[in-house]
Amino acid sequence: MSIVVQKYGGSSVSSTEKIKNIAKTLIKRKKQGDDLVVVVSAMGDTTDDLITLAKGISNNPDKRELDVLLSTGEMMSCALLSMAIKELGYDSVSYTAYQVGIKTKGQYGKCLIDDIDSTKIVESIKEGKVVIVAGFQGINEKGDITTLGRGGSDTSAVALAVKLKGICEIYTDVDGIYSVDPRKYKNAKKLDFIDYEEMLELSSLGAQVMHSRSIELAQKYEIPIYVGLSNSDIKGTIIKGVNKMNLESKPITGLATSDDDIAVTLRDIDANINILSNLFESVGSKKINIDMISQTAPINGKVNVSFTIPRDEQKECMEIIKNFSKMQNISIDDDVTKFSVVGIGMKNTSGVAAKMFRVFSENDIEVKMITTSEIRITCAISQQDKTKAIEIAAKEFYL
Amino acid sequence: MSIVVQKYGGSSVSSTEKIKNIAKTLIKRKKQGDDLVVVVSAMGDTTDDLITLAKGISNNPDKRELDVLLSTGEMMSCALLSMAIKELGYDSVSYTAYQVGIKTKGQYGKCLIDDIDSTKIVESIKEGKVVIVAGFQGINEKGDITTLGRGGSDTSAVALAVKLKGICEIYTDVDGIYSVDPRKYKNAKKLDFIDYEEMLELSSLGAQVMHSRSIELAQKYEIPIYVGLSNSDIKGTIIKGVNKMNLESKPITGLATSDDDIAVTLRDIDANINILSNLFESVGSKKINIDMISQTAPINGKVNVSFTIPRDEQKECMEIIKNFSKMQNISIDDDVTKFSVVGIGMKNTSGVAAKMFRVFSENDIEVKMITTSEIRITCAISQQDKTKAIEIAAKEFYL
Repeated sequence: MSIVVQKYGGSSVSSTEKIKNIAKTLIKRKKQGDDLVVVVSAMGDTTDDLITLAKGISNNPDKRELDVLLSTGEMMSCALLSMAIKELGYDSVSYTAYQVGIKTKGQYGKCLIDDIDSTKIVESIKEGKVVIVAGFQGINEKGDITTLGRGGSDTSAVALAVKLKGICEIYTDVDGIYSVDPRKYKNAKKLDFIDYEEMLELSSLGAQVMHSRSIELAQKYEIPIYVGLSNSDIKGTIIKGVNKMNLESKPITGLATSDDDIAVTLRDIDANINILSNLFESVGSKKINIDMISQTAPINGKVNVSFTIPRDEQKECMEIIKNFSKMQNISIDDDVTKFSVVGIGMKNTSGVAAKMFRVFSENDIEVKMITTSEIRITCAISQQDKTKAIEIAAKEFYL
Repeated sequence: MSIVVQKYGGSSVSSTEKIKNIAKTLIKRKKQGDDLVVVVSAMGDTTDDLITLAKGISNNPDKRELDVLLSTGEMMSCALLSMAIKELGYDSVSYTAYQVGIKTKGQYGKCLIDDIDSTKIVESIKEGKVVIVAGFQGINEKGDITTLGRGGSDTSAVALAVKLKGICEIYTDVDGIYSVDPRKYKNAKKLDFIDYEEMLELSSLGAQVMHSRSIELAQKYEIPIYVGLSNSDIKGTIIKGVNKMNLESKPITGLATSDDDIAVTLRDIDANINILSNLFESVGSKKINIDMISQTAPINGKVNVSFTIPRDEQKECMEIIKNFSKMQNISIDDDVTKFSVVGIGMKNTSGVAAKMFRVFSENDIEVKMITTSEIRITCAISQQDKTKAIEIAAKEFYL
């Protein structure tokens, strides 16, 4: 008998019918002898609806009050799931973050979990109850209600699993983690296992199955996470440490693409790192996410710098960039797809980049920009080459 | 400078536009130097919508979880109102019952307020903030979220006024308390003042402007309550103790009618108080509200007993009554309007009943049943006589 912390996403609880189905699944599991702590997201589009309501008051709603407002979404789904379990004759109790002391630090809207007082949860488990906890929310040192940012319920679940020394299961509307997004490549293979770091890279590259922070937390405390379909017997994927995995020899585990960015190049700017640092600081202060920064070696004290910016923040971003370069020296390329391959095996495999660039070249795929990390290679390519690039890389790396 | 506790009902906060208007009104008042604590109900039909959601899970949803669910309605409107105030450049903070320790006792769904820890509210007032408190909700000794029953936000407001030694203002969609419901009698006069007990009688008779418990609480602690229209300069009504009022000499303050009940008569039942007591206990255990109980003197050890039952609970009620009397001895009269006049002055005025019955008789209004309290006379009359009875009584008693 062990404590199992499960998390159900918004699409899994989008109607009372679906909530009733989850209640049945939980009772089946409970009967197998596991103690259940269940984290639920807000029903379907509830969070978006609440944000729309707040926008009716202000274009820039006060963040403390927005957190109070948004926290109600998870309270509703929690109460309804607990009701559904009791309706089936089993005992259950729902708790808000306030009630179980999910203490957070940081700014409203994107707080980090600091600690959880598990007393009430453990008591309720001992009483035989299925414990339902509102995800995505916490309280800060002032006793204010806070939220953890989009997808924060994943982090709530992992943090509870850490605190309760339980295992963690994330149920969602996908049946596991794929080497390539199956909507983009029909032959994509589902992974039985994936390493934390690989999953982190994939998450940050737009394969948004999981909240990145939840994976970092799981990695830190070595909590394995199961990701799978809710109300289904289809086997999902386990995210865990590579030292615990029967690592296959292939260097690349996954592949991700994103069309969300455009490339900006600044030509002939002074080769002075202060200028760039000021530029990136200015952009960063607006919470705009710059990526794929690359700089060529200086010629006559001048350098060219390229980077990507989010497509939908182009206007705001250009306002800032204009202060750092002459307009005629700024060029924009909006025909950009970020194409990444990720693999923990890459650390021990030479030539992955070389192999990839060779097959791209053989297939006339222009590589516009390149950046790499220890376990990731990202290229900017033209959007028209995306499908071809996915097929080639998937075949080349057996994904 | 004094603390003013205001309460805005659901219809006053049914849209973000209305919430923004209330924010403006509050700031105007704040500028006049008053410290404001504001209790808001859930927006418009939110509570009904949440109940519908719960009914999607269960016909008889678990009461603890239903309270968690329902408490979200007031959290939303609180957060939005506080946002709206901040949007206008003034400081504000919203609190849930949990955060300001509105401690309650009793059953989920109809808890009574036991105490309020006013520390946080007082601190926030000192910081110059407009304090918004979620009405209708509390916490119990276990730390569970509770609710106070329909209309409970009135009680929240009065309890806060008691605790903060402030004055209490209830803003709603009616512009005050009338001697007769203005929808039923177009010449109805609005009252400048009404006594707590008169208001209590009127509330219990169907003039549902205020939650009865809020008036009892105000009476106990001698807190005057202003009732008026939100966002309006129209003068409303003050509910307060008679010893503080410039009492007019007229014996009757108000008049109320209700078509919600039907009359039941049991003929020739044994004149044994145990039988009646068992009957009323059985009905009461189903939370069915019996009223206007009257019994004739026994003849040969048999008595006739009449009483009213709620029209929409007739079926359930008759199931119980059948166990206590032969069917042929039960008669039902569903052509019933309860017609009541209320006045604290009645205590010192003889002949009010006599006067009323005389004018009814002169106008051919049949009086089917009569019950009285110290400050109230209630008759059951035929529904077709209702309008005539209102006009006659209003004229006779100068309402």
